[in-house]
Amino acid sequence: MRRSIKKAAASQAVLDPLCEEPLYMQIANRLANEISTGRLAPGMRIPSETELMSMHGVSRITVRQAIALLTRNGQVVAHRGKGTFVSRPPLHQDLSMLQGFQDALRNQGVEPQTELLEFSISAGRTDRTLAHGLDLPVRLRRRYCVDGQPFAVVEAFLPASAAAVGEKRARDLIVYEILQQFLGLRIGRADVVIRCAPATVQVARELSINARTNVLVMERTSRTAPGTICEFTRIYIIPERYTFRLSLPGPLEIASALRPVETAKRLKLH
Amino acid sequence: MRRSIKKAAASQAVLDPLCEEPLYMQIANRLANEISTGRLAPGMRIPSETELMSMHGVSRITVRQAIALLTRNGQVVAHRGKGTFVSRPPLHQDLSMLQGFQDALRNQGVEPQTELLEFSISAGRTDRTLAHGLDLPVRLRRRYCVDGQPFAVVEAFLPASAAAVGEKRARDLIVYEILQQFLGLRIGRADVVIRCAPATVQVARELSINARTNVLVMERTSRTAPGTICEFTRIYIIPERYTFRLSLPGPLEIASALRPVETAKRLKLH
Repeated sequence: MRRSIKKAAASQAVLDPLCEEPLYMQIANRLANEISTGRLAPGMRIPSETELMSMHGVSRITVRQAIALLTRNGQVVAHRGKGTFVSRPPLHQDLSMLQGFQDALRNQGVEPQTELLEFSISAGRTDRTLAHGLDLPVRLRRRYCVDGQPFAVVEAFLPASAAAVGEKRARDLIVYEILQQFLGLRIGRADVVIRCAPATVQVARELSINARTNVLVMERTSRTAPGTICEFTRIYIIPERYTFRLSLPGPLEIASALRPVETAKRLKLH
Repeated sequence: MRRSIKKAAASQAVLDPLCEEPLYMQIANRLANEISTGRLAPGMRIPSETELMSMHGVSRITVRQAIALLTRNGQVVAHRGKGTFVSRPPLHQDLSMLQGFQDALRNQGVEPQTELLEFSISAGRTDRTLAHGLDLPVRLRRRYCVDGQPFAVVEAFLPASAAAVGEKRARDLIVYEILQQFLGLRIGRADVVIRCAPATVQVARELSINARTNVLVMERTSRTAPGTICEFTRIYIIPERYTFRLSLPGPLEIASALRPVETAKRLKLH
């Protein structure tokens, strides 16, 4: 893979010293061109500083200026100790259908690295962040990494029977696999809430971000067909790397837009 | 209004000095009780420190401890120079239907205070944050305040014909009123994207938050029935005060959960 990148870049390696454009900008433009044509695809490592220096016969300073420009433009991102990579456009999840978080990633060609943070059964009272009266004593916490960087922390609360899943499967099975294939439950409905809220101290540490940084939070409550809550999942997602999408059909109800002034006044609280 | 609060609180003003519970906790519990029974409703001002001191015959320190406890619990919130108010549960927007942002607030009994920040027509190229090729030269920026606090900044990009709306109506009409009643357009579809991203320096100032704080962002692209884009709106919302909600019907497609291991391997990028 690295050889083919080198070859692609090398084929355009001749810079024009008489061009008005500074050398660093010529290098940046060539890399940007490789990215826009897809020869350097999202998630791929770009040539190292040393490789770019020898390809173009320029100083390290010039190469660094080129990479800094691409970084400022959001076209590449440096991962400490690993190199500089072509940025990935934000991953997304289509809200028009019920879909697991991992499946949403996989449908975009991304296989997240999964790490089991916790798989426990609370004897007494369940998690204090959980609504009262929910009987979901099994707690499953996982971290997902994409491109080697922490991407999301998932906390799932499941029925007692999910304890039999065991640690190994708890790491790999998606939540809906546990509910459907393992527990034989049939999902009747899921209620989704999306908000922006500070990560807890624990989650911030797990995501390698500053404590109390606001992140994207999705909470999902799934029910079986008879209406029993069989799952509550909370997902904390790194900002700017994920979007939720939905298409809504028009026309807008005219009733809502044509609100009479009297109604607005009556509702006024101040 | 203030008189009735005082009376309600005064009727329970007798504290028990022999009770094991510290006095500040007794005061906090009484206020919490007023809140939970709805006598102190969301958005209402609670009695001032001085009022609570004279009601209960306690020191300012005790009263402050009581209010601090309620603040930590998220039951009240202080607005500088205005007093302490009963917290409002996060407002929400139902994503199952096409709905204007203001209408979503009004449906929850909240009438936001609206302020026109900008109403301009760009002569040449439209906003640089806008996708290429969109012919939406009219830029409308508004700030919404709820309970006297900045809540959201809305940036709408509209067709040239919207210029005739004029400043006065631009402040008050909701975007869909401009499109439907004023321009006579019929909305065929809206595409919504929800994400978490840093507020721009300008928006952060307008929302009275620190620059680069991550906020909840909704972007909406509306099309007429023939498919022409007739609006792009971006809403920056203060974190923790707004949620998007959606109910999704099950069952989950078994095909997506029953992904064979080979597929997962094939998609693997690393």
